[in-house]
Amino acid sequence: MENVIVIGIAGGTGSGKSTLIQRINEEFADKITMLSHDFYYKAHDEMTYEERCQLNYDHPNAIETDLMIEHVKALKEWKKIERPVYDFTVHNRKPDETVTVMPSKVVVVEGILIFENKELLDLFDIKVYVDTDADVRILRRILRDVQERGRTLDSVVSQYLTTVKPMHEQFVEPSKKYADIIIPEGGFNTVALEMLNQRIYALLEE
Amino acid sequence: MENVIVIGIAGGTGSGKSTLIQRINEEFADKITMLSHDFYYKAHDEMTYEERCQLNYDHPNAIETDLMIEHVKALKEWKKIERPVYDFTVHNRKPDETVTVMPSKVVVVEGILIFENKELLDLFDIKVYVDTDADVRILRRILRDVQERGRTLDSVVSQYLTTVKPMHEQFVEPSKKYADIIIPEGGFNTVALEMLNQRIYALLEE
Repeated sequence: MENVIVIGIAGGTGSGKSTLIQRINEEFADKITMLSHDFYYKAHDEMTYEERCQLNYDHPNAIETDLMIEHVKALKEWKKIERPVYDFTVHNRKPDETVTVMPSKVVVVEGILIFENKELLDLFDIKVYVDTDADVRILRRILRDVQERGRTLDSVVSQYLTTVKPMHEQFVEPSKKYADIIIPEGGFNTVALEMLNQRIYALLEE
Repeated sequence: MENVIVIGIAGGTGSGKSTLIQRINEEFADKITMLSHDFYYKAHDEMTYEERCQLNYDHPNAIETDLMIEHVKALKEWKKIERPVYDFTVHNRKPDETVTVMPSKVVVVEGILIFENKELLDLFDIKVYVDTDADVRILRRILRDVQERGRTLDSVVSQYLTTVKPMHEQFVEPSKKYADIIIPEGGFNTVALEMLNQRIYALLEE
């Protein structure tokens, strides 16, 4: 059986984590397996849309991490998985829809909260934390949510102060302690990106 | 002319920087060029030994960084250099003694304060900062200075609080901002060490 290396990439909102993931995807495409914690947001069919809107999506309890753990373990055993699909427009998991994910020598798992769960954390062979100053992170989030997602500045600020920031301080920032490598600025940091890519190339060639 | 890549490795006392450097040296030996900021402590022939003992060796002014900059520039131009030799037992540079350092494709420059000087900083293609909690760092320093160097606990604590800590907070910690990669625990972090080694191997093969 192939030796599977799992790379966990965590970091707060606006840290540059998504840009880093995008660059890695551009570099390796189908050669590696990519899994986002976001895919595993819990299904809440028992709630109305309005009720689902009120949930705290920045808390670990919003995500079915147990299922992700099961899937990462399966990928490590070179088994394919059926990952859930989450529909952000209705804040719910899509019923009766999954995406087949094939194993590969390098599995990248990404998410804001992936270092918070000890069992998931222990599955990562390489733990990368993308670290960016809080002021830069909120600026990026404002630009993204206001310009790209058409949200009002007030709603972005309110959500940030009500859930994003407290959850970051409670669950994300402390999980930086577990990182093997800290990458400031994430995907905007070409020197670090090159180093990470080099490591992935070496792992694929092993 | 060969393309020379300069890697700067900074980090506070007890961070694990020296262990990291030692591991890199074990891996690459003569294939890379290693330069320590410590080699460039200023000569103070005009002072008595007692006077030299009173100097603040944790301040950037204690080091002839201009000479190191000149040397790094020369190595980048594939020229050999004659680096100074510092004698820690008498706190002075050795007169009439230098060590010839040959250029190579990868030059590693290490030192606590190397990211503090803007001109030196700009010569680094890859900036690595070894980051370890202050409590762990002082514990390592105590063990080293008391057990290996035969110093009293009182003298270690006094020096730490008088110069090491304030200089760290003024010059070292803020320089972390410039890092491309932050390595917690330094040489004790095998995952990060492997990534850095992989990068150096790739640079040597280019």
